[in-house]
Amino acid sequence: MKKISIGLIGFGTVGTGVVKILKKNTGVLRHRLGVPIVLRTIADLDIHSHRGVAVKQDMLTRTAANILDDPEIDIVVELIGGIEPAKSFIMRAIANNKHIVTANKALLSECGSEIFKAAAAKGVDVAFEASVAGGIPIIRAVQEGFSSDRISGFFGILNGTANYILSSMTDEGADFKDILKDAQSKGYAEADPTLDVEGIDTLHKLSVLISLAFGRKVDMRKIYTEGISKITPLDIEFARELGYKIKLLAICRGTQKEVDARVHPTLIPDSHLLSRVTETFNALFLQSEDVGPTMFYGKGAGMMPTGSAVVADILSLSRNLVKGIVNRVPLLTEGNKPLQEIKIKPVKDILTRFYLRFSAVDEPGVLSKISGILGRNHISIHSVVQKGRQTRRGSVPIFMLTHEARELNLQRALKQMDRLAILRQKTMVVRIEDSLM
Amino acid sequence: MKKISIGLIGFGTVGTGVVKILKKNTGVLRHRLGVPIVLRTIADLDIHSHRGVAVKQDMLTRTAANILDDPEIDIVVELIGGIEPAKSFIMRAIANNKHIVTANKALLSECGSEIFKAAAAKGVDVAFEASVAGGIPIIRAVQEGFSSDRISGFFGILNGTANYILSSMTDEGADFKDILKDAQSKGYAEADPTLDVEGIDTLHKLSVLISLAFGRKVDMRKIYTEGISKITPLDIEFARELGYKIKLLAICRGTQKEVDARVHPTLIPDSHLLSRVTETFNALFLQSEDVGPTMFYGKGAGMMPTGSAVVADILSLSRNLVKGIVNRVPLLTEGNKPLQEIKIKPVKDILTRFYLRFSAVDEPGVLSKISGILGRNHISIHSVVQKGRQTRRGSVPIFMLTHEARELNLQRALKQMDRLAILRQKTMVVRIEDSLM
Repeated sequence: MKKISIGLIGFGTVGTGVVKILKKNTGVLRHRLGVPIVLRTIADLDIHSHRGVAVKQDMLTRTAANILDDPEIDIVVELIGGIEPAKSFIMRAIANNKHIVTANKALLSECGSEIFKAAAAKGVDVAFEASVAGGIPIIRAVQEGFSSDRISGFFGILNGTANYILSSMTDEGADFKDILKDAQSKGYAEADPTLDVEGIDTLHKLSVLISLAFGRKVDMRKIYTEGISKITPLDIEFARELGYKIKLLAICRGTQKEVDARVHPTLIPDSHLLSRVTETFNALFLQSEDVGPTMFYGKGAGMMPTGSAVVADILSLSRNLVKGIVNRVPLLTEGNKPLQEIKIKPVKDILTRFYLRFSAVDEPGVLSKISGILGRNHISIHSVVQKGRQTRRGSVPIFMLTHEARELNLQRALKQMDRLAILRQKTMVVRIEDSLM
Repeated sequence: MKKISIGLIGFGTVGTGVVKILKKNTGVLRHRLGVPIVLRTIADLDIHSHRGVAVKQDMLTRTAANILDDPEIDIVVELIGGIEPAKSFIMRAIANNKHIVTANKALLSECGSEIFKAAAAKGVDVAFEASVAGGIPIIRAVQEGFSSDRISGFFGILNGTANYILSSMTDEGADFKDILKDAQSKGYAEADPTLDVEGIDTLHKLSVLISLAFGRKVDMRKIYTEGISKITPLDIEFARELGYKIKLLAICRGTQKEVDARVHPTLIPDSHLLSRVTETFNALFLQSEDVGPTMFYGKGAGMMPTGSAVVADILSLSRNLVKGIVNRVPLLTEGNKPLQEIKIKPVKDILTRFYLRFSAVDEPGVLSKISGILGRNHISIHSVVQKGRQTRRGSVPIFMLTHEARELNLQRALKQMDRLAILRQKTMVVRIEDSLM
């Protein structure tokens, strides 16, 4: 190969980062690869806005097919996100023998095994380092760093927006809604923040990681997912008093046979490294059989960090192209055989400790009623604190930590409590992870 | 290739880990690679001790040449450490067209470019993930994860023994010597701990990382290196009162043209993630142009973590062998051209803040004499604390933090102070890093 030709679909934030890096690092990349990497075409519906990087007008097209069907193009970089038309574009590029670089976690979590199968059949590579945790080389670590090891679990802060909001709520004691507005004004949160704050983006990344770590297909509809929009400053403050931080975690522990996988706000001990991951930073804490605990930390999003991961993938595939090989590392660590689906442990069956916040009327006997219901459902109480602060509605918060209990039992207890007149609001529940390592 | 044959030289702790992992993960490795990885021969001077893993007696030899000259062996794993005979073994293996996996940081930092040159000339690969930070895939991250980026600096806790000693001194307030004895009894420190506690092992790893990050040869004799044996509980306690931890750091910041690289005990802010790396854990905090700050954390030593990194390297080279390629990623990120030597900034020219502890007689005018000397040497004082505690020798400790100052000026001031009768011991100096990120 005398050069590697790139077609880029999607000239948004990350696309702009990719173009900037390919331009400023042309020399370094050529030096490291031996041949030049040439950006040939950029497809985007908007071909007129200026993105702060100079691009020749004749490189731009509104028609993705001009990239997908161009026999000169070796690697197609898909950065439009979402399922369609991204999926059709990628499948057509694969059919045309092009290698793929994508940052599309929504697509990979939904249709990853279909895409990987098509790629393996055609003998092309798919690289997706940028799909999980932006600039942190986590995919590479799982695929190659731990290639001889067995991963038994991981815990990740994988969404920078949610982490920014929780960190700011912690620092400022402010409400979710106020901090969200602030995050939107700073560009850290989308106008529609649902994907980020309701845990869906984290779920996508968790699914990609489970696939990689265990070599199995994942039906993410089976994974319990809960966002951070119900967390209040009261919860954060009380957690802090007890030596915990609240983080939106992607949780996975298990084996190829079955995993306990979930996404939800979680109380984690202050002493744990993950509790120190603040602002928009991401981190993945991993447990493997031989290496033990490891952690990978960095920027999970943004023009340049994610752009850098995309260009590292372009360089990696280019190295294969220069050597004339493909599929050096199987797309899924267990080889390219048809994938079995991994069993997801139903959330009702998990055992965990719970943080509970009740909004109760301030009268005698309340605690006895609550603890009675918990006891009848086999949930034992670790500690209780009743704060003297009466809220507008005339109720007082009661905070409680339970011992380890079955989720099903807790849900039953909550249903029974919902019928109590002494409780003024739905009880707030946050799961606790004491034993991350 | 129908199988990959391995020859292992050095059946010590890490070698035993490698054998254990190759045995228990035979199926997984075969599944991930497509062909089996077969351990053919183990060379060690001791072929009789039992290591807790069953090995057929006829696989063992006391003669390394039985591996180096065996035409059946594809990959030679060198785990004896030190310069000779490791170097001769590796050079002979390369001459015989064998690929190399090594964990030998001493050898790589001393003779890396010579070995890489010979390997490139012969068309064989050299993998050395296990040489820096054991089970943490740092080498892979630098070589591949940041392949499109420019690294501008890194700060590493790269020696588990030294970190264990400093962490224990911090937790227990005990003396270096007592903790060292405890570490030796637990197997965390060698009978002769010099390499670990005097920073030499950290220097070796720093040199390997500088080579990789900047694509340059390193003359490590030019890198200032200081160990932790002079740190006292007093220093640790005072640092803690000021919001700092003391860590043995490998420090590097700069460009291909020149780096400020050093190894020494360092005061780092409590708020920094690196300050939370305790016990025998290692971590590398990295700064790069596009990705920004990242951190990699895990076990930097031990039978299974380091063994796992060695086996990941074996698998990586095996993937190349199966595909019939070599040198997919150049051994040094800037290609395989003859390496220029990187300039190391002389330590006398660095600018940094200093922690100083004086042992002074308890009489009026002492502070005036000390601050006079500092002032005349252009060192301005940030804060001073004199503790009332008189020691056995009738002196009291005075603690001082300076503003940023030139090292040369500090050394001049220290020389002048050495002549003061009011100072009873040599002044303790620890450099401060406030701006790691």
